[in-house]
Formats: sequence, C-alpha cells, structure tokens
Amino acid sequence: MKVNVGVLGAGTVGGALVQRLLLDRIQIREKTGVDLELKVVAVKHLEKPRSFELPPERITDQAMSVVSSPGIDVVVEAIGGLEPTGELLLTALRSGKPVVTANKELVATRGEELFEAANRSGVPLMYEAAVGGGIPVIRPLAESLAGERIDRVSGIVNGTTNYILTSMAQDGRSFKEALEEATALGYAEPDPSDDISGRDAAFKTAILARLAFGEWVAPWQVECLGIEAVSRADVEAAALAGKVIKLIGVAERVGRDISTRVSPIALDVDHPLAGVDGVTNAIFVEGPAIGRLLFTGPGAGGQPTASALLGDLIQVASRRNWQGKAPSYRRPRQVLHR
Amino acid sequence: MKVNVGVLGAGTVGGALVQRLLLDRIQIREKTGVDLELKVVAVKHLEKPRSFELPPERITDQAMSVVSSPGIDVVVEAIGGLEPTGELLLTALRSGKPVVTANKELVATRGEELFEAANRSGVPLMYEAAVGGGIPVIRPLAESLAGERIDRVSGIVNGTTNYILTSMAQDGRSFKEALEEATALGYAEPDPSDDISGRDAAFKTAILARLAFGEWVAPWQVECLGIEAVSRADVEAAALAGKVIKLIGVAERVGRDISTRVSPIALDVDHPLAGVDGVTNAIFVEGPAIGRLLFTGPGAGGQPTASALLGDLIQVASRRNWQGKAPSYRRPRQVLHR
Repeated sequence: MKVNVGVLGAGTVGGALVQRLLLDRIQIREKTGVDLELKVVAVKHLEKPRSFELPPERITDQAMSVVSSPGIDVVVEAIGGLEPTGELLLTALRSGKPVVTANKELVATRGEELFEAANRSGVPLMYEAAVGGGIPVIRPLAESLAGERIDRVSGIVNGTTNYILTSMAQDGRSFKEALEEATALGYAEPDPSDDISGRDAAFKTAILARLAFGEWVAPWQVECLGIEAVSRADVEAAALAGKVIKLIGVAERVGRDISTRVSPIALDVDHPLAGVDGVTNAIFVEGPAIGRLLFTGPGAGGQPTASALLGDLIQVASRRNWQGKAPSYRRPRQVLHR
Repeated sequence: MKVNVGVLGAGTVGGALVQRLLLDRIQIREKTGVDLELKVVAVKHLEKPRSFELPPERITDQAMSVVSSPGIDVVVEAIGGLEPTGELLLTALRSGKPVVTANKELVATRGEELFEAANRSGVPLMYEAAVGGGIPVIRPLAESLAGERIDRVSGIVNGTTNYILTSMAQDGRSFKEALEEATALGYAEPDPSDDISGRDAAFKTAILARLAFGEWVAPWQVECLGIEAVSRADVEAAALAGKVIKLIGVAERVGRDISTRVSPIALDVDHPLAGVDGVTNAIFVEGPAIGRLLFTGPGAGGQPTASALLGDLIQVASRRNWQGKAPSYRRPRQVLHR
C-alpha cells in the first residue's frame, strides 16, 4: 500500500529528506515493503533554488493546506521553531495524520499538548530526529529500555558547539573564528544563538529526561550555561591540565528529584566523551542493570537527520500498511513514549 | 491489562529476568502501564537452588506445558541451544503466543522457519537480547535505520573472548589463565567452545547481516576464525607494534554480494574499538547518510541481557494492551525485521 507524504520545510534537513524520498523510493519499497509517495513539499519562498527537482504543483507555500489535506497520509516537519509550526502540527494531528518531526524545541516546549492531540486522534507523533541527529536514541530509550530504572542520561547533544570547541582545542582558533568556520560549513545556523547559549542542548536534555524518567521536564527547568564565555585561554589552560572542554547535558536522579543541566565541563582527556570531536554527538545511558550504554554518531547535518526522519516515517507508514486503517494507531503508551 | 508471562530457563539470564519480574513489577507498571505477571518458570532441574523465591506450583520442569498452556500470553526463552528450544518456540508461536528470546544460535540458524511461524500466527518474535547483550542494536537497525542503505556492520560482539583478550593484553595472562578467570567470573559458559571458536560471534554477525541487508545469511556462511590460536606472544608482539588484538565480526557489501566474517584482528591502539575492554561490546553501523554510528555497552552477563529481554517483553505486552486482541500482531514486516 502506498502512503502519501507531505513534507513541511525544505532547508538543510527537509531538502535532504526530499532528496532521499525521490531517489530511494524503490530501494525503500524493496527493503521495507513501504511505498512512500512524496505528494507535496511546503516551503517558505517558492522562488528559492532547491537541491531537488519537483514539478511546480508539488511545491507549495501553503503549509496549512498540506496538514489539512485529505490527500496526505503522513506529515513530516522540518521547519523548526515554535510558530507557526506548533499550529501546523496540532492541525495535522487533530485531522488524524501521524506526524514525524525533527523539532526539539517544539517537542520539549509543547510536547504535552502535542502528545495529547496525537492520543486523542489515535495517531503517533514520532521524533527520533529531534535528539542526536542520526543516532537512534529516542527509540532505544522509549522501547528497548522501557523497563529500566535509569539513573542518568548525559552527553554531548549539540553538534555546533562541539564543532566550535573542537576547532578551538585542535586548531587553536578563537571562539569567533571557530563559529565563523562552523557557519561557513553549514554546521551552525545563520542565527546560532540557540546552539551557543546551550538552549538547543537544554531542549534535548529535557526530552531525554522525560524518556528516561517518565516525567515532563520543561526546557526552562534545565539549568543552562552556554559556551559564549569559553575563551581560547580557557581551552589552552584545560589542555595544560590534561583536560578537554565539552558542552555536556545531564539528566539524573537525585534522591526523589530529577536534576537537569547543560554546561561546559572540563573532562579528563581519557574520559570517553573527551575524544568525541566535531559535529559528533555521544549519549550515555546509565542504570543498575545495563551499566553504561554509549550511543555515538553524527549529531547534526541534513543527511543524518533526514535519515532519522525516514526511519520514523517508515515505521509510521508500515503500521498503516499492516493494519489498513487508523485504529492501528490507538496505542497511547507508544505515542506518549513514557 | 495484565499479561501472563512464562519464562523458559532459569540460568544466569533467565534467573536475572525472573528476579526483575518479581522485584520491578510495580515500577514497570507505573512507568509503562504494562502489568507483567510471572506465571511460571520452566527449569531443567527442579531441585537446583535458585536466586529467586517462587512457590513450587510456579516452577515446572515441563517446558512444553508452558508453551502450550492457554494461561500463558507471552513466552520468554532463556534456555539457549537449538533443541529442544526450537520445538518449544515453534509450538509457542503456532499456538499464537508472542515469543521473546535471547537465543542467537536459534535465530541465526532457524530464523526463517521461526519468523514464518510467527507471521502465520500473526504474533511477534523479538530478539533484542540475542545480539550485544544489553545494547539496543536490533531495534535501531530494524526500525530507526529501516530506510538506510547500510554498507557495513562490524564490531566486538562476543563478551567472553573480549574479556580473555583484554586480560591477556593488560594483565599478561596466558590464554588458558584468562579463560579460567572468565569462567570463574561467570563470563564464560562451562563449555566455552562456541565463544572461543568464534561461532557465537558468527551467529550474531549473521543476524546483523540480515537486519542490515535484508537477506538471510546462514551462520555457516560466515567465515569464522576464533581466538584459540592467539597466544600471549601474539598479544605482546601486537602491543610492541602499537596494536591491540580483538575478535571482530564484519558484515559488509562487496559489490552485489554480502561478505561476512569473524576473526581476530590487530587494531591500532587509537582505533575506536581498541579501547573497548572486558565484556563490553561495541557495534559500528556505517552508511552514506548516517556516516558511522557506534553502539557500546555490556555485551554479556545476566543483568544486561535480562534488561534487553524485559524491553522486548514490555513492547510485546504493550501492544496487546493497546489493542486488546491478537490481530494487533498482524504486522509481517515488523515480525520479519527486514
């Protein structure tokens, strides 16, 4: 059975996803049995040159028409930000469309509302791409480790700042030079303030905390210190002391409470996270039964993030396939990922 | 809704799972909404002392009665080996019971037959615990990376041999001494020949190959060299050359074919797998879009493996919960994990 896909956003991540949907459709159908037909892509500026070729009728600047169209079975969101994305996704969910998103800010900030809308309609809201880029960490936490008493989730969850810190430590660049380099290579957004300030890492830490501990943590509850104040002198002093500065997000149990924070930390050079360089992310999950699990991989970039979106999309589409109709999505626990 | 669980086997892994089911029932219910009631444990010797306490009517030496009992909803298998386990699991699947297993040998050797039986009955066969112990790697490969063109899966997939090689390299032990140490600590089976010979790693490599490439690879098709012939002199010579010997399993595309092999390899000390010591396992997944993902964690031991079984069990039980009846399992693609 064919699944009609609507994609919102055609920037780095959305553009990479559209390419994959166009180029890999047959391979995906052969491997997974799911036929993903890209029906329409919603963009902000119709005239902007794109990395993919689509007939004009399959590109629109009316995102709201995509999420409410009866011809679209699943919506994939790669716009980012809170508005208008929040309203778009709520509309999609309320009209019974499963949603796949890479939007950590929205899931962290308005997750409760979104999951409630998803549950009411009996459709899934998937967000593997929101944390760790191409690293599968949401699904392992939500499913494989569902029965664990997790003590701590921690790690490097922002590729941009890790790229900057690596460049400062290894190439002797100043913060400003390293940031310019990251921007030139497409690793930093035109406005990198969410990365630099640790806000992006705080969104991800809040999401990880909810999955690990089953409790909603608002992003503003995450103590947050960015890397703006980290100078080349700090990096050099750390190196002399045999240390490496990394921006680390932590969510852990402290007695009956949960502590969440993001801050630069000087790690010993032989710490497993000390050698995680560039845009690579690495996430530890610790608990009494599992000891220490480590997930490492590309934490940023269009291709890896599109890959995570595609994995979720195939999951969602497969279930439709298997069951043939919407009631197959009536699985609150999975949607809630608690 | 309550799910009645029957456990087959109460050795290191089965015993750890039974303990978790007894001790964590309430915590699991609160976190996941799934109420797992351990109905019965099948053991080989009724008189043997156990690490858990159960009333005598909940322990049996009649495994066949467990898999065919209408009072059991899900069967978890931790016996190992091909027979009688194969017949037990086929009986469970044919009588419509979902099966969760840690049995890499059985899944690698008779997987086609087992998945066919599962599909016919419309129930899932889950085996996260069969590869990588407590590391979630099956689900990420089967689901998160479903849409990827994977080029290569490789890594350290046997904890026993990695423990032995680490002990030889770091503590200067002979192969024999290191093996005795591993046996004393419970990391090696009384008969460790499947570990030492690389057979266990070959089973896991065959399973990984199927997940990565969607094609059945029989364990005997995996080129296999164990560590029997690795001497202390080899380990010392490697160290002098700045290398570390590890038993590595590889499944990769070579043109249109798939190549699978297990063998000891001398890695440079700065190779990411060179520092993976003791019973830790580490698995790389590589592809054009995702670059290189690395999953690291406890690859052996009762607790981590029981943790993986529990994750699968909760998944299976949740679906039952959500849907209320058997047709919820009619999802061939998922069961096939292709």
